[in-house]
Amino acid sequence: MTKMERGLLIILTGNGKGKTTSALGQSMRAAGNGMPVCFIQFIKGSWKYGEIEAMKRFSDIIDFRVMGRGFTWKSDDLEKDRAVAAEAWEYAQTAMNSGRYRLVVLDEFTYVINYGMVDRDAVMSAIEHRPHGVHLVITGRDAPEELINVADLVTEMREVKHHYKKGIKAMRGIEF
Amino acid sequence: MTKMERGLLIILTGNGKGKTTSALGQSMRAAGNGMPVCFIQFIKGSWKYGEIEAMKRFSDIIDFRVMGRGFTWKSDDLEKDRAVAAEAWEYAQTAMNSGRYRLVVLDEFTYVINYGMVDRDAVMSAIEHRPHGVHLVITGRDAPEELINVADLVTEMREVKHHYKKGIKAMRGIEF
Repeated sequence: MTKMERGLLIILTGNGKGKTTSALGQSMRAAGNGMPVCFIQFIKGSWKYGEIEAMKRFSDIIDFRVMGRGFTWKSDDLEKDRAVAAEAWEYAQTAMNSGRYRLVVLDEFTYVINYGMVDRDAVMSAIEHRPHGVHLVITGRDAPEELINVADLVTEMREVKHHYKKGIKAMRGIEF
Repeated sequence: MTKMERGLLIILTGNGKGKTTSALGQSMRAAGNGMPVCFIQFIKGSWKYGEIEAMKRFSDIIDFRVMGRGFTWKSDDLEKDRAVAAEAWEYAQTAMNSGRYRLVVLDEFTYVINYGMVDRDAVMSAIEHRPHGVHLVITGRDAPEELINVADLVTEMREVKHHYKKGIKAMRGIEF
């Protein structure tokens, strides 16, 4: 790679909707600029039909990888959870350091950190020492303070109102 | 159209980043489900190269329209501002009522309402009486209370930290 500026660290957190969809939009924006993107999903099953189909239109420039396990990372097999998390994180590090991508998205990664599935200090070090020119987007609730401290851009998606609370069920094309 | 449920009204507001990118991601998700989308940009110039290029990949299912004028809607020609806003809003209503779209996005529409460029009561009435099966996403800062009251889902994007404040300039593929 040619000499580049330090990439940005962007955190999308909070209890509201729009974290993953925003990361998706961010990936499209980068791809539209001809920047190769690696989008890694740490929570298996959190992505639904709609976005997976849409991503196929970017298969030449966005690598989309589903890693990890189900939503809670709290199964009855902690050993296996850790092994899966370690493998996913290994993949993420390889992507960050490969020189192939200008944007790497770690979708729902905060859960993996918060459940203690990866070593927090090792994660912080890898993020801070990634090659120049690699922007990083991390999504998920409850972003750890250490991440926020070193981030360039942090947006909290705050839920003001949600129709689930009115008893309306999830709708195709909107939630999935 | 066949008999359908009432579509959702989704508001993406707040002073943080991620409102338009989230609406973009939402459009991709709908398109991935085979739902035709009409994405109307009310602030001319707010969309940059990256997303416009990316949108071209969805030209079979997402109609993307740039309406309106520059960012402030406060030019030295109020008459012209109102005329342009009226035309854009007319287009939006036609899209909502056409039966062609399952999702209509009014990007940065709150500014048009807040600057008094369109009749607020007429807007509220058109939104509430749109045909069933049409989801509506409205983005922009300072969403009016009336909109929030009738919305199904409201997310506030709250700026926690922004690198502009550290003196880092906007970067290609991230901000544009």
